[in-house]
Amino acid sequence: MEEMLEVFDFLNKLMASGDYVRLKEELNSEQPANVAEYFEELTAEKQLFAFRLLTKDMAADVFSYMDSDTQEHIVHSITDREVRSIVDEMFLDDTVDFLEEAPANLVKKVLRNTDAEKRTLINQFLNYPENSAGSLMTIEFVKLRSTMTVANAMKQIKYTGTDKETIYTCYVIDDQRKLIGVVPLRTLIFAADDNIIEELMQDDVVSVLTTDDQEEVANSFKKYSWMALPVTDTEGRLVGIITVDDIVDVIDQETTEDMEKMAALLPSDDEYLKTPVIVLARNRIVWLSVLMISGTLSSFVILQYNSLLEAAVVLSGFIPIITGTGGNAGSQASTMIIRGMALGEIGTKDSLKVVWKEIRVGVLCGAALGIINMVKMTFINTDTGFWIDLSVSLSMAAVVVLSKTIGCLLPILAKTMKLDPAMMAGPLISTVVDAVALVIYFSIAMTFVL
Amino acid sequence: MEEMLEVFDFLNKLMASGDYVRLKEELNSEQPANVAEYFEELTAEKQLFAFRLLTKDMAADVFSYMDSDTQEHIVHSITDREVRSIVDEMFLDDTVDFLEEAPANLVKKVLRNTDAEKRTLINQFLNYPENSAGSLMTIEFVKLRSTMTVANAMKQIKYTGTDKETIYTCYVIDDQRKLIGVVPLRTLIFAADDNIIEELMQDDVVSVLTTDDQEEVANSFKKYSWMALPVTDTEGRLVGIITVDDIVDVIDQETTEDMEKMAALLPSDDEYLKTPVIVLARNRIVWLSVLMISGTLSSFVILQYNSLLEAAVVLSGFIPIITGTGGNAGSQASTMIIRGMALGEIGTKDSLKVVWKEIRVGVLCGAALGIINMVKMTFINTDTGFWIDLSVSLSMAAVVVLSKTIGCLLPILAKTMKLDPAMMAGPLISTVVDAVALVIYFSIAMTFVL
Repeated sequence: MEEMLEVFDFLNKLMASGDYVRLKEELNSEQPANVAEYFEELTAEKQLFAFRLLTKDMAADVFSYMDSDTQEHIVHSITDREVRSIVDEMFLDDTVDFLEEAPANLVKKVLRNTDAEKRTLINQFLNYPENSAGSLMTIEFVKLRSTMTVANAMKQIKYTGTDKETIYTCYVIDDQRKLIGVVPLRTLIFAADDNIIEELMQDDVVSVLTTDDQEEVANSFKKYSWMALPVTDTEGRLVGIITVDDIVDVIDQETTEDMEKMAALLPSDDEYLKTPVIVLARNRIVWLSVLMISGTLSSFVILQYNSLLEAAVVLSGFIPIITGTGGNAGSQASTMIIRGMALGEIGTKDSLKVVWKEIRVGVLCGAALGIINMVKMTFINTDTGFWIDLSVSLSMAAVVVLSKTIGCLLPILAKTMKLDPAMMAGPLISTVVDAVALVIYFSIAMTFVL
Repeated sequence: MEEMLEVFDFLNKLMASGDYVRLKEELNSEQPANVAEYFEELTAEKQLFAFRLLTKDMAADVFSYMDSDTQEHIVHSITDREVRSIVDEMFLDDTVDFLEEAPANLVKKVLRNTDAEKRTLINQFLNYPENSAGSLMTIEFVKLRSTMTVANAMKQIKYTGTDKETIYTCYVIDDQRKLIGVVPLRTLIFAADDNIIEELMQDDVVSVLTTDDQEEVANSFKKYSWMALPVTDTEGRLVGIITVDDIVDVIDQETTEDMEKMAALLPSDDEYLKTPVIVLARNRIVWLSVLMISGTLSSFVILQYNSLLEAAVVLSGFIPIITGTGGNAGSQASTMIIRGMALGEIGTKDSLKVVWKEIRVGVLCGAALGIINMVKMTFINTDTGFWIDLSVSLSMAAVVVLSKTIGCLLPILAKTMKLDPAMMAGPLISTVVDAVALVIYFSIAMTFVL
């Protein structure tokens, strides 16, 4: 990180001193990701100037690493001819990523500078459902025929491979463009020149459909440690491939979505700092109000026990600690189950095992917390007396057991109903637990205190 | 998933019918990851039997995909000779992964069946700190010299490449084994036979140190879309490489750790279903008790307002809804900040921007929730009266603003103090917010209700 700042400083100095020859040289020899980062720090004018110092290849590379604001500014400012040259060099999936976010006038500017064939493809890509395999894939891959020799295949790779996103996995198709095999470049390298592809290829190919969800695709990558995965249409025709570097982004995106749901937020793909205040507020108000209104139930429970509270108002002092601990205990359980499900470690078939485990964990935690609380109240809350201490401690123990059980049941229930288990996390669990916890607390207190 | 069950059924049938020739054929042509999954469903006896049907290569592959229980059972049951053959075939990083988890007697059994050179390496690997680049890397990579021609390099790859984890990125070292360049196989394929490596290689190499944390390594992969990354010692000597498929696991592991911390759990690498109840309970009791004891503060606040509550016991009915909403509002803010920090989207330099944004979001959310609550209480909680409704609604609004501010401040504070921001999530935020929320609530109520 600090090294990066030094590089940026150096580039800024070159820019300031007008040594553009050197600046051009440095920019074109840096990592494209770093140059893109540098551009984000520049003023709009300097961005454009520096961008024009990049070679054609480098410009396309750097462009695909930029954030959408910078991309839009660049496309807005450059000539049609320059747009054409970037689009020519860029991989189709990167172009589509940009177009998905871009405003209509820029989309037009790009499409008008794209040849008819590529334009058709782009439009097709823009029509794949968001977060589907189709929207992730690239069409720049190496196609081979099963009858080729290794020597021919290598020639084909040398001849057609330069503009492919990967040449390390090659795909074998038949006359109907149906995917019939996969052969890693590695196999070709170690094979004799006159071997036939058909004998070398793996014909038991795992592929995904254009409409498959990206989460499934990511899970397949995790399980098999793929470098790339072919994407077919419903007829089994090969239409694209997905490479592992795009999957890394998908995994982050899916996890962020889960975390947001778990924190009672409407999920969003946008970076925090770039999301307007009003959008952030809207994404939060929905669940906050739902949960607040559901909280009315606990008000009713408390008001039901009006006379108990009037007789021993000190009991109200332990409401937050009991509901709070219940919420925490429930969150712990639900988080473990939700994450286990997301990683494929826990399935609905494990439901009974999970519930039985959580009940036992709950009993251990409940007993420990009850005892700790009893000791704590005896020594710290000295004005409460034995029976109140006992009521709070017993409630604490019972509430923890109950919260653990609810905490694991709700995600399982969601999964069974084909809902996203991530919804059933801390905030929702707390709200559900609150009312029940209060009933337990007041019932126990009624017995001991009144 | 269903397809998989069909495959398993088929394999079981072959096993039951005693058609071992066919079973052997099927097992050896399946994906190693699937065979490993199948083994986990078998009884110990059948596992061993089926394992012995695998070819040497396949056995090593399948072994590295197995869970640790199955691995241990296999190593425990097979002969020394078989152990030797698996260890020979396995990549060093997979062997080390197994040894890190295995009980001492199995570690001995493996080490005694490893040649001296490999044993030294394994011991060295076992000494790298857990979760460091050193513990992740593999030593099976292709080394080239800068003076080689492309033809020579290709020969070297063909000759030495078969047992390398990847041949797609080759590393150029000097006489002192110092890393001086990287050249993708792709570049070699497209180059002329008599080109010299020195002219083709990228000499501006990004590398990591053996002691670097895996999270930094993962971030580097994300930023640059690498396939592999070289690892050097402090002298700049190349000691290993990390490939992208291992990074996918690291990303999952790091996220799980964050989520566990965010749910007030002690983080653990073990799968939920395989963790004993007592360990699960221990990982939860620590934070549950800390938070419960901290909750004493809110008890003190409430008991401070004894006389107010005695005068208007109905006020206690809204304690959970106010503290709950505060907790939820705070969790939302902290989750967004923690995640943004983990993804590198938010740094400490953005602190002021973040706080100012959260205050504005808080005001919007607070105003909305205050109004919704006022309407709700007027129509649902009809026995409370205007002044109590107003007290609760105003408190709600103020508490939301405050919680948002605390929710974003605490992770920033943690980051500044070089602590893990993930700790500062829902449970901790709720506990902090509770006491302050209650002070606000009762102060407002004092003014309007008494």
